[in-house]
Amino acid sequence: MPRYRMLIEYDGTPFVGWQRQANGVSVQGVIEEAIGKITPEKITLKGAGRTDTGVHATGQVAHVDLEKVMPADTLRDATNFHIEPHPVSILAAEVVDETFDSRFSATKRHYHYRIVDRRAPLALDRYRAWHVRKPLDVDAMQAAAGVLVGHHDFTTFRSTHCQSKSPVKTLDGIDITREGEAIVFHVWSRSFLHNQVRSIVGSLKKVGDGSWTAGTLAAALDARDRRACGPVAPAHGLTLTQVDY
Amino acid sequence: MPRYRMLIEYDGTPFVGWQRQANGVSVQGVIEEAIGKITPEKITLKGAGRTDTGVHATGQVAHVDLEKVMPADTLRDATNFHIEPHPVSILAAEVVDETFDSRFSATKRHYHYRIVDRRAPLALDRYRAWHVRKPLDVDAMQAAAGVLVGHHDFTTFRSTHCQSKSPVKTLDGIDITREGEAIVFHVWSRSFLHNQVRSIVGSLKKVGDGSWTAGTLAAALDARDRRACGPVAPAHGLTLTQVDY
Repeated sequence: MPRYRMLIEYDGTPFVGWQRQANGVSVQGVIEEAIGKITPEKITLKGAGRTDTGVHATGQVAHVDLEKVMPADTLRDATNFHIEPHPVSILAAEVVDETFDSRFSATKRHYHYRIVDRRAPLALDRYRAWHVRKPLDVDAMQAAAGVLVGHHDFTTFRSTHCQSKSPVKTLDGIDITREGEAIVFHVWSRSFLHNQVRSIVGSLKKVGDGSWTAGTLAAALDARDRRACGPVAPAHGLTLTQVDY
Repeated sequence: MPRYRMLIEYDGTPFVGWQRQANGVSVQGVIEEAIGKITPEKITLKGAGRTDTGVHATGQVAHVDLEKVMPADTLRDATNFHIEPHPVSILAAEVVDETFDSRFSATKRHYHYRIVDRRAPLALDRYRAWHVRKPLDVDAMQAAAGVLVGHHDFTTFRSTHCQSKSPVKTLDGIDITREGEAIVFHVWSRSFLHNQVRSIVGSLKKVGDGSWTAGTLAAALDARDRRACGPVAPAHGLTLTQVDY
């Protein structure tokens, strides 16, 4: 039974998130249904990152085991054909060894978060970036972010619904750069807690607009208390861009 | 009666185009209605470029005369407030001399056209770029484009519905560059015929995929015959990015 690895892009706006749920349309569900039109077997698609509702992906990775044997390119094209009209695209598919697991074999996950800081509302980027009306200080955010990088107890920066056994994680890096009108946060780590990236961006935004100092951020991390977190950044600015193995 | 100049961004997807029409929601109509909630006067907003349905803008310019006197920033903010929830944003407003005319004072209009040439469908860029499944040769397109630059009879490259008196125009430039996955056409000129940019891009795409040579394109221009044009590129890849005065 071959295992197929898929590289996936999606617009998260119309979905309840990656994971199949009783109510609402999920990315996982849409792809599983499309594969179900190619082969009648009961299948489960397993993704590397369980993105929330509204979160996008340009580099989600998933795997699926199929009894039906076919060229990987055929699986990609046929799945894309049946996914229409949902805004989900299988960019690539390949046959992988059965030891490959999209979730557990991942060594690094990369997320990008976009903020546009300007007075006027966003028309074209309305569902692709967080609109912040005050100008943000990128250098201040980058300098403060250093305290979060490394091995820490991230209780402050995880959702109260997070199901991870431990709040202790190693955050590999945060790069913050201005790209035209947008401020792009690139955050990478082996794995993340639920809402960790959005909690970090929401807190760094407080540093950027001057309402927090770098010291406030360090104290928030030290507090190991969810109540010390800044307001969580909205989902629609977040994109899962790459998973390394 | 002060004249206000506005810089406007919009997502063209839900609109019948810039221009107010009997049926459907237009960008002009949405902005005029928003201004109508600030002042009861009967007003007309005049735009520099009458973009078609589905065409976007990051740099449309328009002007409007108002009896009501207010700071330009107040006009911008109040208009944006009333435009919600439409994906249109007034980026800037300023008071200008009454000799300024958004349409007739323009010395240059800049359009960008985006193509993504890849096998997989577009999820995130579905309404922002033309999806072409075959890889396109950017160098061949750029080399061929040279024949279109300059003073020509563009009958081949204008819609049969074009209302311009003359098909003769000076096309100032075409730059074609690869930006990541996308191919971006930057086309600029004092003014354009109806569907001229999309007709040019659709014909250059034939050169890019190898079905036309540079000679075919030159012959199409020489023909001065609409039937010699390549298939017109779809509207949703086009953005009015800048108007110079």
